[in-house]
Parts: sequence; structure tokens; C-alpha cells
Amino acid sequence: MTVKAPELDPKTDLSFTRTLAVPRQLVWDCWTKPEHIPHFFIPKPHRVTAVDIDLRVGGRFNTTFDVEGNVMDNQGVYLEVVPQEKLVFTDAYTEGWKPAPEPFMTAILLLADAPGGGTSYTAIARHRSPETRESHEQMGFFDGWGTVVTQLEDYARGLLK
Amino acid sequence: MTVKAPELDPKTDLSFTRTLAVPRQLVWDCWTKPEHIPHFFIPKPHRVTAVDIDLRVGGRFNTTFDVEGNVMDNQGVYLEVVPQEKLVFTDAYTEGWKPAPEPFMTAILLLADAPGGGTSYTAIARHRSPETRESHEQMGFFDGWGTVVTQLEDYARGLLK
Repeated sequence: MTVKAPELDPKTDLSFTRTLAVPRQLVWDCWTKPEHIPHFFIPKPHRVTAVDIDLRVGGRFNTTFDVEGNVMDNQGVYLEVVPQEKLVFTDAYTEGWKPAPEPFMTAILLLADAPGGGTSYTAIARHRSPETRESHEQMGFFDGWGTVVTQLEDYARGLLK
Repeated sequence: MTVKAPELDPKTDLSFTRTLAVPRQLVWDCWTKPEHIPHFFIPKPHRVTAVDIDLRVGGRFNTTFDVEGNVMDNQGVYLEVVPQEKLVFTDAYTEGWKPAPEPFMTAILLLADAPGGGTSYTAIARHRSPETRESHEQMGFFDGWGTVVTQLEDYARGLLK
């Protein structure tokens, strides 16, 4: 099956679609296996120093970043896991469905076979308010997430060799 | 299997456990089938006038109340569905994982066979902040949810006859 994209709300959502020259299975593996995440997950030279994944609905998706010497802990959970097609995660909860005081966003990744080969990759960030969407765009959503997907494609290509 | 209760945070969570003299399967059906919901879901004489359920992770759980002539629309989604054991839902999202601006709570229902027969019923409400938990307690969490479970038990008993 191919999962349906949600109906987006331009006031609160950010989104883009790109075609990647790597197979869908590999894109899925990169996004869901802890050994792959540090190779693409944040724009270089920032580094992912720890990844803790329990890939199931309600399971944890926790990462630690080193951004110019500052350690940032990010805690979240998976909301929906449809292998090779759809991954939804958020910082709105930590494991056990404990609500976060001030959630920032909910991310939806949609993967499909691209018509000419490779993978059609859609990234969606949904926010609680227009203000949060706006601040995410100002923080560099398109550059940042674009860099991440370029890093992902480069890294995944290397795995194919 | 029996699902594990999450580790609660007394600062932000409310919870109680009761034993109901009806089978677990029936308690599950009452909570998940739209035809049953109006019979117990809010304290009488308030009425549930509409129920729209898509019982799957991310599916909608929408209800309409008539409270002394005031119509209240409640929209939410299911976060986790483990038949006859665990039901998690929240107003933090509407269908399609659209984040709500100001979520109030996340509810976790846990059902187990009670040692002497019947169903051990645990209701947990998790909140984003101590203030939200406090206001939910002031609004009458224990009375309200207690009344709901009494209504549920009475209604379910009637179905057994």
C-alpha cells in the first residue's frame, strides 16, 4: 500500500518533497537504525553523540547533539511506524505517553518509490501554532532539513557501494 | 500479555484503579464502540449526542456533548490500541497528527482480569504541567471519572442480562 499524506495546514505546517537516488528500504533503515542516524541527522559539523531508539508506537526516539561544544538532549517518541512508508515522531511526549510541557513539532516522513527510480521523500513538520511554524521557518527549516536529506542521500549512496 | 503501567509522575498525573463486576471484553467494547459510548461517557444528566470513532493508532475519537443545552465538540485521536488491555487517547492531536494548540490531557485506560473475577480498571490522566493536573483535579477528576466508571459498570451489567 501507499499511505496517504495528511491534509496540510499552510498556517501551521512546513513541508517539502525530494527525490533521492537511493532505494526506499535504505532510506527507511537510515532513519530507524541507531547506527545510521549520526551520519546525517543534523547538519555538519554538528554531531550526534548518542541515539536511543525503540521503534514502535510510543517507543522512544532520543538523541544527543554536540553543537559547538553544547550538549543538547532531545527526547521524543514514535507516533506511527509503517515500515518503509511512514514514520511519525514528536517531542510532544516522552516514553510512557508523558506529555511534554512545551512541544515544538510533530514530524511526518513519507517514503514512496519514485516513478523514475529512487525514493520520493516527503518531510512534514506540523506545529501547534502559526507562531511556532514561523519560528521553525526562521530557524532554517528548509535549509536545515534540506541539508539533512542531502547528507542522508550521500551517506546512503556510500552504503550501496 | 499484560501491558505494563507507565511510571507515573504525581506532579502531573491523576489516576485510580477500580474493580468492575463485568468481563474485560465488555469493558473494552463499551469504550471502543460508538453505540455504547453515549450510555456512560459523561456524568448524567449531561448527554453525548454524537460519537465518531476510527479505532486505530492516529484514528479519530471525536465526541459531542450536550451540557445543559451547551454543545461541546471534543476532538482527539487514539495513540495506542491494545485490544482488551490498553487504550490511549488524547486531545493533543486531531486526525492526521495535527497538533492541538493547547492540549489538555492524555488518557490511558488499563484493563486486566481481576484476581477474584471481573475487571481491574485503571484510568490515568497525564498532563503537560502541574497546573493542568491541578485544574483537572479541581474540575472533579475523581468524582467525574468515578461517576463515568460507575455508569459504565451499570450499563455493561445490563448488557449481560
